[in-house]
Amino acid sequence: MKQKIIRIHPLDNVAVVLEDIVAGTELDQDLIALTDIPEAHKVALRDLQVGAPVVRYGVKLGQAAEEIKRGEWVHEKRIIAARPPELEQLRAIKPSMPAKLPMPEQMTFSGFRNGDGYAGTRNLLGIIPTVQCVAGVLNRAVELIRRDLLPRYPHVDDVVVINHAYGCGVAIDAPDAAIPIRTIRNLLSHPNFGGEPLVVGLGCEKLTPHMLLGPDRASEAVVLQDYAGFQASLNAIIDSAAVRLAKLERRKRETLPLKHLLIGLQCGGSDSFSGMTANPAAGYAADLLVAAGATVLFSEVTEVRDAVHLLAARAADEQVRDRLIEEMAWYDRYLMAGGVDRGANPSPGNKQGGLSNIIEKAMGSVAKSGHAPIAAVIGPGERPEVSGLVFSATPASDLVCGSEQLASGITLQVFLTGRGTPYGLAAAPVLKVSSRTKLREHWPDLIDYDAGVIATGQKTIAQAGTALFHTILAVAEGRQLTCSEKLRVYNDFCIFNPAPIT
Amino acid sequence: MKQKIIRIHPLDNVAVVLEDIVAGTELDQDLIALTDIPEAHKVALRDLQVGAPVVRYGVKLGQAAEEIKRGEWVHEKRIIAARPPELEQLRAIKPSMPAKLPMPEQMTFSGFRNGDGYAGTRNLLGIIPTVQCVAGVLNRAVELIRRDLLPRYPHVDDVVVINHAYGCGVAIDAPDAAIPIRTIRNLLSHPNFGGEPLVVGLGCEKLTPHMLLGPDRASEAVVLQDYAGFQASLNAIIDSAAVRLAKLERRKRETLPLKHLLIGLQCGGSDSFSGMTANPAAGYAADLLVAAGATVLFSEVTEVRDAVHLLAARAADEQVRDRLIEEMAWYDRYLMAGGVDRGANPSPGNKQGGLSNIIEKAMGSVAKSGHAPIAAVIGPGERPEVSGLVFSATPASDLVCGSEQLASGITLQVFLTGRGTPYGLAAAPVLKVSSRTKLREHWPDLIDYDAGVIATGQKTIAQAGTALFHTILAVAEGRQLTCSEKLRVYNDFCIFNPAPIT
Repeated sequence: MKQKIIRIHPLDNVAVVLEDIVAGTELDQDLIALTDIPEAHKVALRDLQVGAPVVRYGVKLGQAAEEIKRGEWVHEKRIIAARPPELEQLRAIKPSMPAKLPMPEQMTFSGFRNGDGYAGTRNLLGIIPTVQCVAGVLNRAVELIRRDLLPRYPHVDDVVVINHAYGCGVAIDAPDAAIPIRTIRNLLSHPNFGGEPLVVGLGCEKLTPHMLLGPDRASEAVVLQDYAGFQASLNAIIDSAAVRLAKLERRKRETLPLKHLLIGLQCGGSDSFSGMTANPAAGYAADLLVAAGATVLFSEVTEVRDAVHLLAARAADEQVRDRLIEEMAWYDRYLMAGGVDRGANPSPGNKQGGLSNIIEKAMGSVAKSGHAPIAAVIGPGERPEVSGLVFSATPASDLVCGSEQLASGITLQVFLTGRGTPYGLAAAPVLKVSSRTKLREHWPDLIDYDAGVIATGQKTIAQAGTALFHTILAVAEGRQLTCSEKLRVYNDFCIFNPAPIT
Repeated sequence: MKQKIIRIHPLDNVAVVLEDIVAGTELDQDLIALTDIPEAHKVALRDLQVGAPVVRYGVKLGQAAEEIKRGEWVHEKRIIAARPPELEQLRAIKPSMPAKLPMPEQMTFSGFRNGDGYAGTRNLLGIIPTVQCVAGVLNRAVELIRRDLLPRYPHVDDVVVINHAYGCGVAIDAPDAAIPIRTIRNLLSHPNFGGEPLVVGLGCEKLTPHMLLGPDRASEAVVLQDYAGFQASLNAIIDSAAVRLAKLERRKRETLPLKHLLIGLQCGGSDSFSGMTANPAAGYAADLLVAAGATVLFSEVTEVRDAVHLLAARAADEQVRDRLIEEMAWYDRYLMAGGVDRGANPSPGNKQGGLSNIIEKAMGSVAKSGHAPIAAVIGPGERPEVSGLVFSATPASDLVCGSEQLASGITLQVFLTGRGTPYGLAAAPVLKVSSRTKLREHWPDLIDYDAGVIATGQKTIAQAGTALFHTILAVAEGRQLTCSEKLRVYNDFCIFNPAPIT
């Protein structure tokens, strides 16, 4: 029996194997494996001379570093990576409307309304410190709130404290400090918190309640130096929590148009399957959501940098295209200042998973953005001001991207993984999608949806994407809890602070 | 009754008031307050023309920005800050041995021996992830370990999980990545963990168990991708914890020379009293500890930068002096790359507490280093290789400094505060010292020791410093728990990562 291989694009001169292959095995397309080839890695479809382009996704990943025979394993050391697209040349690209989007069967969802803004998918008491100094007291307070108060408010789903490393001992006037400051400020108005966040400060920090809440509401913060010690601080936090819980208790789900839904897409621990299964399925689901009026964020600058010419061509207008170029240029400079470039991205796990370099990773990464025009580009932690597909220019680090997307207001994240991670966010459900069926089988209690069925041919991308769309709505409506919610597996909030620590 | 004011040095032309002063009040030294002066703020001791030096601690804080009359309030806006010492000129300073140190009454302490190295002050199971991705699972595992396992091991004080934001999504080959990598690596051999740290990894991260534990011990890590989902991962962590708890259970305290003690000093939320009370008391205690052979770290680059010429003169030799200059120069460049300088340091709380600028803050800050020669200068997270007084060049951020000092191996931290913070570290007791008696009275359950008695004249610096020395030993020996330990108020581990996020 011939082993299946997957070629994505007619121009490709490599394809991906679905299983570990032993030298001598017969593969599809009359190919014989000349070497062992690990699962998810690439096989050469024809002989490649030194310097010949290695092509996957119809895109040049780089040049052959040595002679490669048809049937041999093509791995990272055999490819010299191509250079990233020159940003200034992208200004010549004319925005054009891409193909028509598929239409969804469902145009509404049941969520917690926040006026005309994005609705909540969960009803949470959010507690946000101005500064890490108060985290120890806050954690103790939350234990008590969860034990003693929360059971009295059955319509409130949980109490979430978002400790972070920012707030003092930082260069708060540095140009790049705008990023962490707006991240925390925007977090306060997260749709799941229903306009009732509890801010807890210390009293001598740089990031003041005044900066976060403005002059009119600054006094709503609990400031620990105003209270006589630990016990009094605890009581003040608990009392303030009780007032907010009573208000949140009155929130009810109602049926709303999907324009009230804001979700995020992210991949982590990607492998060579990601770009063929999980990411295109997510892209199809994103197309359905955008067609229904929802807002969908995708992110991760270093993972789209090498595919940015494809994104520039999908910009809704020239302003969006130019903002994309500016965000990429900012990140190029940021990496260069640290002595690295976007090639610092792929992890050992990515490489074991068959991703030879950042170009191959990027081509898989952008697949999750589907085919909608890019309606806007926003900086990390900014709130989108238009509906549709939005690129938020965050780092690719799962933890930092997730935290910054939360600040941008996502109320659900679809997380695509090949290697597997138990990742979760306390403030919004994370729906984890596996790129390989083996991962779902290995981690049945951590993976919510398996897109590996695309590789095996059981489902098309459209079928898997439609099923994912319905799962997203089930989670958004609270009809389904994600694995991470059921297990209470939540990661820390990892803020992006590119400015100095003092 | 005349109100007391404190002048530190005979050359000073300003002094500090101990209470809120109303204009017209009679002060010591035949002075009449011409303006209101808040508690801990400075009063002019003589008329100062525009451009005249403003002197405190015998050091020029800057120039008068306007004419200041004898008896007037001297605040930050009335002083133009002096420039920091030029680093290259410090190479001309010849190291010289400072004055003889006071001798302590006690030369030993009871701790958990680690061979010839630094001893533990607590007996802890330390659990350290390679990467933030596993934090959610780890937190659940620790809940169960604490509930089900720990009670069976009465000689183990606690289980501590040190989640951090590092490990993946980072530029791990960037030059500055050496700092976070060594921080985590050195944390593993923290004296309180008794050589039995439990490392938990994911399996696809950049910071691998191999990098942390070396080739021989890498297999000791629990790697979640090797286990079949959440429950299996939990079981693997719990099983590995049980093996280590059984070993730790056999650790017993024994009487050891003080050369086995390594402590850290830090200030946070400083005020104008800090440099007159808490910090010199800590300096006296440090002198006693160093005289007895212990190792004492002090840190916080931006808070010593303006006093670096005083430290350079105390370097044990020219290598130490030059390393001090290099660390300062690194930090100058780091801040400049972010568009700021060391003037970004003082917080609003510092300024409310009477500290006009970073120079005044620095002069108070270095008082905690006492009078011993500086035996070594180390980078953030490095382990000291010699005993005595050591400068570790960490950021001044309380959270980052504390985390980096932990990585350097401190088993106790003396934390000096004027404004007050509930700060605590889970891996080592933090002994909090107030600079003002009012703070101790306001926060009786959060402050361990009051150095404000120096300002009121109830104790001399030597008396308060000796009492603090004995309190340090009581805490180190486990005879006394700190406020933060009693209340279980612990901050997050905030690693210093000056390299880019990818």
